[in-house]
Amino acid sequence: MSRAATQLNQPTREHHIEPSVKAAEAHLAHLVGASDPIGVFDSGIGGLTVAYALSQVLPAERMIYFGDTAHLPYGDKSTAAIQAYSVKICDVLLRQNVKTILIACNSASAAAFDLVKAYVGTRAQVLNVIDPVVAYITTAFAGQSVGLIGTKKTVGSHVYQDKVLLAGAGVQLAEVATPLLAPMIEEGFYNNKISQTIIDNYLDHPSLQGIKALILGCTHYPLILPQIQDYYARKGQSVAVIDSSMIVAEAMKSLLGAHNLLNQVMPEGDQRTRPKHHFYVSDYTDSFVASTELFFRQSVSLEHYRLWE
Amino acid sequence: MSRAATQLNQPTREHHIEPSVKAAEAHLAHLVGASDPIGVFDSGIGGLTVAYALSQVLPAERMIYFGDTAHLPYGDKSTAAIQAYSVKICDVLLRQNVKTILIACNSASAAAFDLVKAYVGTRAQVLNVIDPVVAYITTAFAGQSVGLIGTKKTVGSHVYQDKVLLAGAGVQLAEVATPLLAPMIEEGFYNNKISQTIIDNYLDHPSLQGIKALILGCTHYPLILPQIQDYYARKGQSVAVIDSSMIVAEAMKSLLGAHNLLNQVMPEGDQRTRPKHHFYVSDYTDSFVASTELFFRQSVSLEHYRLWE
Repeated sequence: MSRAATQLNQPTREHHIEPSVKAAEAHLAHLVGASDPIGVFDSGIGGLTVAYALSQVLPAERMIYFGDTAHLPYGDKSTAAIQAYSVKICDVLLRQNVKTILIACNSASAAAFDLVKAYVGTRAQVLNVIDPVVAYITTAFAGQSVGLIGTKKTVGSHVYQDKVLLAGAGVQLAEVATPLLAPMIEEGFYNNKISQTIIDNYLDHPSLQGIKALILGCTHYPLILPQIQDYYARKGQSVAVIDSSMIVAEAMKSLLGAHNLLNQVMPEGDQRTRPKHHFYVSDYTDSFVASTELFFRQSVSLEHYRLWE
Repeated sequence: MSRAATQLNQPTREHHIEPSVKAAEAHLAHLVGASDPIGVFDSGIGGLTVAYALSQVLPAERMIYFGDTAHLPYGDKSTAAIQAYSVKICDVLLRQNVKTILIACNSASAAAFDLVKAYVGTRAQVLNVIDPVVAYITTAFAGQSVGLIGTKKTVGSHVYQDKVLLAGAGVQLAEVATPLLAPMIEEGFYNNKISQTIIDNYLDHPSLQGIKALILGCTHYPLILPQIQDYYARKGQSVAVIDSSMIVAEAMKSLLGAHNLLNQVMPEGDQRTRPKHHFYVSDYTDSFVASTELFFRQSVSLEHYRLWE
């Protein structure tokens, strides 16, 4: 779909949203193109698992990442609060001339995707981490039982359930909130007795019996993918564990391609010529810096962006 | 100590801090007295364990509670961020003419007590949840080994260690961060296999062997006091588990008494004549409402105070 067509499809929505003056100015000063960066935001550092997948699938693309560490976790915040934070973060990303905005957080995807899409309008393409996964399972697991684990916010919103029903592929979705997994991962408890006890307790849930696939509905969970696969191996069950970060990265590639926004300048293998990403956080601590290595598989330099002052 | 004496003791500090105009106006309009409320603040709902203890020890006192649920948990926020939030919350409490401000959060007590005390000046008495506990253990366990468990923020600040050393009573303090306990309690995992695995893992820490007492350095932990006592019973060890909420409530009683600020109007047993507390939160969700019953032992009405708009 061309940018003009996108604009034609959303006239009534845009009339209800008043973009911030600064963002409008940024838009007037610059029309985005293929060489512009991809914007990614999350409640904190967990979305770096998705950023990592993007860096693997789209090595030529430059990223602007924003982690709202001042408000993490979003999982127990109100919908209104998440929407307010998301709009403010989009203003920051738009001022950096991002060509796309990826909401790399399931809670924010559930609470704020429609608002962000309407707010951003034609200024950038908007993608969430839920739609690509729903498209995948309604194709690959049509007519079968699929499980979903995530935060209370994501599961309580039933956003996956609603989208799966809308797709009409006969997928039976069983949703179970697993709120202790994210803090467990952040504290480094995985592949030990504690993680096994917690994972077993959650996956033993009656609703999750007989499923053919399990969606990891939180950006933290790819880090315990081996332990979850091990659970099903121990039980002798054949369950496909779906790491959404790679599916989302592929969807981003398709979206950029469809809008002629793929960066054609491929970098050389040399580290110095790679795209220079930026990673902003709304609250800065050494602990967050340490976590980047966990989630992005390499240590990155965090920049403190005082969003709320 | 009289209010005038307090003022004389802090002249240099106060000169460095510029109180907000609104708070100054509130102060000019009203000098606090015994009938004014007690202000209590925390990063969220956990401080309600301390509020509950206050309501038991001081049944005639009216409370204004502020839970900064928009930013919880403070345990992984930066010192600067916690200080900024604390000052803003104190302005709210001072506008409600509180006679005292209790920082009912270990992370905020560690990060912001000196600042809050200087900022509030003579407008209200300020108490934290650490000093009363340090006073207690340096008296009751002089010359002995004592353990402390708390968030990364509290333990990493070594605030208990510094204060214990300053008291010079020869207490050897062993500090261990136990960051998974608070989310575990919030998710309702206690008195089951998961809580026992996590508690055992933490309390088995080599640093905590041979202690005579264990300080529960987080407002959430009184809820798992029986499970912690059970751990030591299973091990056949005699360790006093110190619930700081009651010690803090007694310290508040002493502080009010010393400044002639104890409310002399005792309420009748009738529920309708009890002091009418107010409980404000910076972000409102049904989940927080449900948690009040957990921490305050009764369901209370939360009021949404938009601190950050």
